[in-house]
Amino acid sequence: MELGLVGLGRMGANMARRLTRGGIAVVAFNRNAEVTQALAKETGLRAVDSLEALIAALAPPRVVWLMLPAGDVTEQHVDVLASQLAKGDVLVDGANSFYKDSMRRGTALAKRGVAFVDAGVSGGVWGLENGYALMLGGEVTAVARLKPAIGVLAPARDRGWLHCGPVGAGHFTKMIHNGIEYGMMQAYAEGFALMKARANFNLDLGAIAEMWRHGSVVRSWLLDLTAEFLAKDQELKEIAPFVADSGEGRWTALEAVEQGVPAPVMSLALMMRFASQGGDEYAGKLLAMMRKGFGGHGVKTDQES
Amino acid sequence: MELGLVGLGRMGANMARRLTRGGIAVVAFNRNAEVTQALAKETGLRAVDSLEALIAALAPPRVVWLMLPAGDVTEQHVDVLASQLAKGDVLVDGANSFYKDSMRRGTALAKRGVAFVDAGVSGGVWGLENGYALMLGGEVTAVARLKPAIGVLAPARDRGWLHCGPVGAGHFTKMIHNGIEYGMMQAYAEGFALMKARANFNLDLGAIAEMWRHGSVVRSWLLDLTAEFLAKDQELKEIAPFVADSGEGRWTALEAVEQGVPAPVMSLALMMRFASQGGDEYAGKLLAMMRKGFGGHGVKTDQES
Repeated sequence: MELGLVGLGRMGANMARRLTRGGIAVVAFNRNAEVTQALAKETGLRAVDSLEALIAALAPPRVVWLMLPAGDVTEQHVDVLASQLAKGDVLVDGANSFYKDSMRRGTALAKRGVAFVDAGVSGGVWGLENGYALMLGGEVTAVARLKPAIGVLAPARDRGWLHCGPVGAGHFTKMIHNGIEYGMMQAYAEGFALMKARANFNLDLGAIAEMWRHGSVVRSWLLDLTAEFLAKDQELKEIAPFVADSGEGRWTALEAVEQGVPAPVMSLALMMRFASQGGDEYAGKLLAMMRKGFGGHGVKTDQES
Repeated sequence: MELGLVGLGRMGANMARRLTRGGIAVVAFNRNAEVTQALAKETGLRAVDSLEALIAALAPPRVVWLMLPAGDVTEQHVDVLASQLAKGDVLVDGANSFYKDSMRRGTALAKRGVAFVDAGVSGGVWGLENGYALMLGGEVTAVARLKPAIGVLAPARDRGWLHCGPVGAGHFTKMIHNGIEYGMMQAYAEGFALMKARANFNLDLGAIAEMWRHGSVVRSWLLDLTAEFLAKDQELKEIAPFVADSGEGRWTALEAVEQGVPAPVMSLALMMRFASQGGDEYAGKLLAMMRKGFGGHGVKTDQES
């Protein structure tokens, strides 16, 4: 199987490595040509220096897989490729795109006879070694065309990937996956924070995380990772308590609102990230002022806190 | 090693099985003597019919392990045993007891020269097969006395158990473990509920859970269980949406309040269980009345809802 890969960032580059190791002929384009050349040397993939060259290098019917940042960059590339791909080609978006954007793109491409597949890809930097969990949305025939590549990217040919449903269903499933991830991470973080704070027990958080990995109800891959870094450092003095968020946590909260289905823990985990980013500061100042106003309670100035 | 076991419920009986298989000589007492007799036949443990007989059957210095419901039942047995055990004996509480109760019991027993070890035990009904994660609090010498039994109960001699710290530290760690479990479970439940509600994608929740088990960031033992039952039934029509809670979720929330350390997701997961138990109903009625009061909005009667 031959596959055109656009985007060789952290995810894309490792996927190129896994694909080429698995016998997939990869033609790759990346904004920075040096990255493409270096990866060509390392993996034997064929480097091209433009989207046009990528299209020209692939024999129709083509499969082009985008691994770009979700949002504008992906949108622009889908737009350009929409005019260059031909009937029968398949365009895959492996970014963490909003599923409604994917549905819109799928509809637009379908009008030109190009099949769109939205691929939610999980596995992070560990995917190269362990394989990527793949959540796919699209027509049966389009997903079938991807099977050789899916079999190589996934943890195994017969597991760790799923054709979830029509266009949009892949990114939707990945969005929910990430929403769950937010909630799980927050739960672990709160638990370890409570143990850290109970100083009289002088608990070894790294040893507890390691122990929980075996036979406990909370064992998980996220705990495996947590145990690994807590074994080295449980004070975390060098780390700022700032937790970034990406689109999927926000979209999960919006989905709950749109459906009228409660997802309080997922949403609160997101809100706690906003708080960690400083988004709670103005509210905190206001609350301090209210306490002063109705109770004469003292306030800290910004210098004291 | 010889060990006296009190309580042969779901947990205690399976622990007796695992202990006897592992070569530990178990002397057991259970309120219902038929249960003890049946288990004696099955496992070769020695059945006794009273706490007094248990004490008499064990050669000092004794190890007695309680696997009773936390609260009054455990309290009563600790009280009785406090007067019957002798200096040098070790009393283990394997219930999900509140860690402050364990600290109090440990102090009281220490005055009589009896060492107390609080053991948080995780693994549920799967512990017999996979082993039990054991979180232990107590003096080094007391925990050392338990090592042969711990090695048999745990998933392996060298892992899945930890001497966490002084008396109380075992049950404290188990309490936090369960608090994390509440948050994780709620996160998964919300995610699957959002997928179920997005009917246009007609997602196969069992297949998604199974796929996530391989290579995804949210893979965990709780997900393994979820995949197993969703594979059989994802409508859950026979199941009432009532989620019980036990002490440890509540104590984790109290711990957060006592420490002034936020644990919002754990606490909210607990509150959502209260809501599932109907605890949100009066507030819901009041809110409906407020909306009627200030906006003239209609209310549903209890018959309509």
